[in-house]
Amino acid sequence: MLQAKGYAVQDAHSPLAPFSFERRSPGPRDVQIEILYSGICHSDLHQARNDWHNSIYPMVPGHEIVGRVTAVGAQVTRLKVGDFAGVGCMVDSCRTCASCAEGLEQYCENGPTYTYNSKLRDSEELAFGGYSDLIVVDEHFVVKIPPTLDLKAAAPLLCAGITTWSPLRHWKVGRTADGTPHKVGVIGLGGLGHMGIKFAKALGARVVMITTSPSKAADAMRLGADEVLLSTDRAAMKQHARSFDFLLNTIPNGHDLNPYAALLKRDGHMVLVGVLTELDPPLFGGSLIGARRSVAGSAIGGMPETQEMIDFCAEHGIVADVEMIDIQSVNQAYERLLKNDVKYRFVIDMASLKNAA
Amino acid sequence: MLQAKGYAVQDAHSPLAPFSFERRSPGPRDVQIEILYSGICHSDLHQARNDWHNSIYPMVPGHEIVGRVTAVGAQVTRLKVGDFAGVGCMVDSCRTCASCAEGLEQYCENGPTYTYNSKLRDSEELAFGGYSDLIVVDEHFVVKIPPTLDLKAAAPLLCAGITTWSPLRHWKVGRTADGTPHKVGVIGLGGLGHMGIKFAKALGARVVMITTSPSKAADAMRLGADEVLLSTDRAAMKQHARSFDFLLNTIPNGHDLNPYAALLKRDGHMVLVGVLTELDPPLFGGSLIGARRSVAGSAIGGMPETQEMIDFCAEHGIVADVEMIDIQSVNQAYERLLKNDVKYRFVIDMASLKNAA
Repeated sequence: MLQAKGYAVQDAHSPLAPFSFERRSPGPRDVQIEILYSGICHSDLHQARNDWHNSIYPMVPGHEIVGRVTAVGAQVTRLKVGDFAGVGCMVDSCRTCASCAEGLEQYCENGPTYTYNSKLRDSEELAFGGYSDLIVVDEHFVVKIPPTLDLKAAAPLLCAGITTWSPLRHWKVGRTADGTPHKVGVIGLGGLGHMGIKFAKALGARVVMITTSPSKAADAMRLGADEVLLSTDRAAMKQHARSFDFLLNTIPNGHDLNPYAALLKRDGHMVLVGVLTELDPPLFGGSLIGARRSVAGSAIGGMPETQEMIDFCAEHGIVADVEMIDIQSVNQAYERLLKNDVKYRFVIDMASLKNAA
Repeated sequence: MLQAKGYAVQDAHSPLAPFSFERRSPGPRDVQIEILYSGICHSDLHQARNDWHNSIYPMVPGHEIVGRVTAVGAQVTRLKVGDFAGVGCMVDSCRTCASCAEGLEQYCENGPTYTYNSKLRDSEELAFGGYSDLIVVDEHFVVKIPPTLDLKAAAPLLCAGITTWSPLRHWKVGRTADGTPHKVGVIGLGGLGHMGIKFAKALGARVVMITTSPSKAADAMRLGADEVLLSTDRAAMKQHARSFDFLLNTIPNGHDLNPYAALLKRDGHMVLVGVLTELDPPLFGGSLIGARRSVAGSAIGGMPETQEMIDFCAEHGIVADVEMIDIQSVNQAYERLLKNDVKYRFVIDMASLKNAA
């Protein structure tokens, strides 16, 4: 076994605090990674505080992990010691179902093993996440990070990045066959939304940032949006009615989808990536029927598409906009996250862990 | 002008009663049709009683029209005197927008002209529907009915038929590329649902009728279903979870979509064709996100696909199951429709109009 240290919560009401634990020694297919950077996802906060009523403690959060490979098992072929590597939301899956066979492990019919707040496969042992100094993961669930990427700003790609990349690719967002840019709306400008803008733009779309906050307009344009649409401006919403090919809805809470649905063209799709709870107030059936619109959902992404995204980012120079913190400030960062006070992702410099008590 | 007679409602609270009115004489592109049969759609009832708060009176309902061509304008090419012809929910559209250009006139960006409860294009004149002895319609909105079809049972194809056919075709329901039948659920066994079963089966799918009524099981099997699933049977619903490729939801009122969504496989679609109002209680975002499911809507169908459906029906011997009535019984039929007491569509034999007061 390997001795690991990190930060954990012991129950729904306690702050994150230093925590020592064990990781398995790498098996033949495992990659051992020294964690350099760990992004803070909004879901870390939800799970630390048991907002989804499924939390297992002690919990070491973190599923936006970038580090350096320090050991590999004998059967590992894609990575070698010294490579930079990334680990996202999953560390295992059944490997046998139709979704796993297609490289869509996030939809594993038997349920994927999440990076934390999960039990290891066929085990009672807890999975501990990225707010720690090292991790050991089966090669299949490790992506290779090109050294040309800014490593600290690449960490959020492993969740915020892939969660927005996957639906844009699945719904073939970018340009029409004749080269016309799709008109794409990104709803909500947070960790997910800011990646959605960057990806949609890089894929060739005309990107409209849709927000309730006039204060976000300048930043949206800087991130690559072609236009900002205030959803509180009824006249502007009406002007944009029936004009969008695709809407990427990153809002994390239940909200009224009807004003957004009205923005879609015939056969347009609105894809939800943030809201797991009730879509309240309810949608109107007529809004879908009247223009053959659809509302769909999409979850993170599979391992092949995660590597594809990382390679695309390296090619196009795309990373997240991050604010670096030390692990000792993680509880304050959570408080700020609650107020959406971050542009656009906190990333923990795990070197700070060496100073931990 | 042509003298026409039919049955109309004068306001939201009065019964249908005999009504005389005028139709235009056929112009160069018009087809004049002697109406033989007129189906009764559930929406006739809603509109007669102003349930959707958009009714215009006097109203002659009826948009499932089959008849014989009695005159054609000089520029009419597809139909000739003596042909059998059908008219559905629309009699005109803008003809210039992208949807019209694609033959999807039901999604006309400027709004189609409906067969009744609508004003004629660029006119204050009311459109009067099929509960009448004759109608004059632009050739583009008339389909040709092969004489081999049972004409009276073909009338409901013009609305109930095309409304279920169009989404099945748009979402390419039938078999996978390797010939495996799609698993298709038809939710609700009424006028739309019974056509959905027939079409999905004829297109090669494995069809499961999903209903709350055990009493409908035998009939569903007779109509072509391979299996019946009671949505009130929690164990059966669980057994079918994540197994459907496609769900055709024909329920006409707001209802809980969540138990049905759970039946869909990864990437499965549920398409609503009946419910225009609130989808209450609300959907859960997590149900869509967890398996990349989508909920979409679909409205009637365009003219090219309506002709395609009619030709498919002629080839496969498909018509609606109908109960024939005289026009004098139409108010009683409405009362029975309110109680879903019809298998599965009332059709008015318009010959009975000659006996009207």
